[in-house]
Amino acid sequence: MREGELIRHLAARVATPPGMLGIGDDCCAWTPAGRTCLSVDQIVEGVHFTPDTPPEAVGRKAAAAAISDLAAAGARPVGAVVAIGLPARWNGPAVMEGLITELERLGCPLLGGDTTGAQQLTLAVTVWGEAVPTAHGPGRLLTRRGAQVGDLLVITGPVGGSFASGRHLRPEPRLEEGRWFAQCPYITAAMDLSDGLAADAPKLAEASGWGCLLLPGQVPVHDDVPAMANGVKAAMQDGEDFELLVAVAPEHWPALQLAWPFPRPLYVVGWLTPEKEHSMEDSAGRRVPLAFRGYEH
Amino acid sequence: MREGELIRHLAARVATPPGMLGIGDDCCAWTPAGRTCLSVDQIVEGVHFTPDTPPEAVGRKAAAAAISDLAAAGARPVGAVVAIGLPARWNGPAVMEGLITELERLGCPLLGGDTTGAQQLTLAVTVWGEAVPTAHGPGRLLTRRGAQVGDLLVITGPVGGSFASGRHLRPEPRLEEGRWFAQCPYITAAMDLSDGLAADAPKLAEASGWGCLLLPGQVPVHDDVPAMANGVKAAMQDGEDFELLVAVAPEHWPALQLAWPFPRPLYVVGWLTPEKEHSMEDSAGRRVPLAFRGYEH
Repeated sequence: MREGELIRHLAARVATPPGMLGIGDDCCAWTPAGRTCLSVDQIVEGVHFTPDTPPEAVGRKAAAAAISDLAAAGARPVGAVVAIGLPARWNGPAVMEGLITELERLGCPLLGGDTTGAQQLTLAVTVWGEAVPTAHGPGRLLTRRGAQVGDLLVITGPVGGSFASGRHLRPEPRLEEGRWFAQCPYITAAMDLSDGLAADAPKLAEASGWGCLLLPGQVPVHDDVPAMANGVKAAMQDGEDFELLVAVAPEHWPALQLAWPFPRPLYVVGWLTPEKEHSMEDSAGRRVPLAFRGYEH
Repeated sequence: MREGELIRHLAARVATPPGMLGIGDDCCAWTPAGRTCLSVDQIVEGVHFTPDTPPEAVGRKAAAAAISDLAAAGARPVGAVVAIGLPARWNGPAVMEGLITELERLGCPLLGGDTTGAQQLTLAVTVWGEAVPTAHGPGRLLTRRGAQVGDLLVITGPVGGSFASGRHLRPEPRLEEGRWFAQCPYITAAMDLSDGLAADAPKLAEASGWGCLLLPGQVPVHDDVPAMANGVKAAMQDGEDFELLVAVAPEHWPALQLAWPFPRPLYVVGWLTPEKEHSMEDSAGRRVPLAFRGYEH
C-alpha cells in the first residue's frame, strides 16, 4: 500500500472532531483551551515487540504507551499523529487499525501522520493534551519536578511481569487517576512507570533535586510475575508497567487515601531523601545502595 | 551512547524558553497563545538520505523538512520533539547537533524526544506552531482547502534538481513567506512542495474539491537541474523543493504581486478547474492529461 492510498484509507476511517483540521493537510490544527503538554513515544520491531506480534497489537501498544505520558501529566488527550516506518511484510492497515481503535478508546483522535518504507516496523506516536480546568482555576499539569525531601513515593498498582505475561502489549494508561492527581493539591510530582521502579523512581528524585530510598519489601508484585521468578526483582526492574508514580508529603498521605476514589489501592514504595543518591531498605531494615537496575531499551 | 546519556547531553545543550517545560520529563509543556498546528515528518536512511550522508546533514534535513509544514500553514514555530531510531554505526550526538542547530536557526526549540536502537537511522520530527496575530485579529492558519475554481496556482521559487545537486539536504523552509501569505486575504490555500509540483498541485486541488491545469512551460526550472537533464520534467516531478504553492483569485494577482515584499518573485504555474481531473497545457497550447508524476517516497 503506497503512502497516498494509506492516507486516503485513514482519512475515511478516522472521525475528525469539529473545529479541528485532521488527516490530509500539511499540518493538523486545533484551538487550544489551556496549558498543553506533548510527548513522543517510539516502538521498534525487535526492541519493543517481536516480528510475530499481531499487527493490531503493535498499533495498540504504540498508542497506549504514548498516552500513558499524558496520564502522568494529568492531562486530557487532545490529539495524536503517527510516523510509521513500514516494511512490506507487515500489514500496514492492520497496524493502523490497532492504533486508531486504541486512540479512540482513550479519547484521542488521530489527526495526521507520515508513512515511509523501512526495514523494521517503527511507530513514533506523538500525543498531546491539556490541563483539565477545576472549580478553582484553569487546572495544572503534573511534572517530575516539585517533590520535596520526605515526600512519600506512591504507585497506583502492582508491577512486574509485563513481558513474561504479554501484558506489555496491552498497557492501560492511568488517565483518570492522573487527572485526579492533577486536581489534588497534595501531589507534588508524577511520572509513569515505563522502565521499572528501580530506574524510574530515581528519575523523579533527580528531577526534583533529591535522592530516594525505596522499600522493595513494600512494592506490590503483579500476579503476572511467574511463580518461579524473583518477585521483588521483577517488580523493581521489569518495566512497561504504566502505573503512575507520584510524590506526596507524609502528613497528607492519610487524607490522600481517604479521598482516593478508585477501587485499586495506592501503595507507598519509598520516599525522597536529602542525600542525592539512590538507596533501598534491605530485608533487615538497613539502608543500602539500590541493588536493582531498570530496563533500558 | 545509551538513552539516558543522550538525554542528559541534550538537556544540557538545549535552552528551554521561559514558561516552557523541556527535555527530561514525561511530556514537554507550554501555554498556547492561539490556534495551533502540528505536523510530523519522518526521514529514513536509504530513502531520504544515504548511509554516507554526514550525520549533521541528516539532522539538519529532518528539522528543516518538518518546519516546512509550518511554513505552509503560515505559522510561527513553537516547539519540536524528535523520535530517533539510532543504529550503533551512526554518530548520535552529531545527528542531534545538526537537528538542534537547524531548529535554533528556524526559531523552534527542541523540547523532548525518544531514542531507540534500530537497524536504519530514522528521525521522526514533530513540530508545532501558532497563528500569528495581526492588527485585525488573532491571525489564521493556511490549509490546502479553500481554493476556488479559477484561482491561480502560484509558487515562491524555481523547482527541480534538488537530489542531483544535494540541495535536498538543505531545505530552506519559507517561514516568512508563509506568514505573509497567512495575513494576505487574497490567499485561499497553501501547501509546501515536497513531492514535486505534478504530485502536489493535484493534492491542493483535490483538498479544495476541484481539478487543476498546470502550465509546464511556465514553471521556473531551478539552476540546480543539470544541463543535460529535461528541465521541465525535473521541475515538475523531482520533489523536495520546499517552495510554497498557494492559490489566489486571478483578479487579486496584480495586487498580490504589488504587495509582495520579498526579493524572489512569484510564478503562476496553473489554475484550478471545475473538472475534477489533473491536466496540463502542452507545448502547442492544448489541454492534455497531466503527463508527469511526482516523487513518492
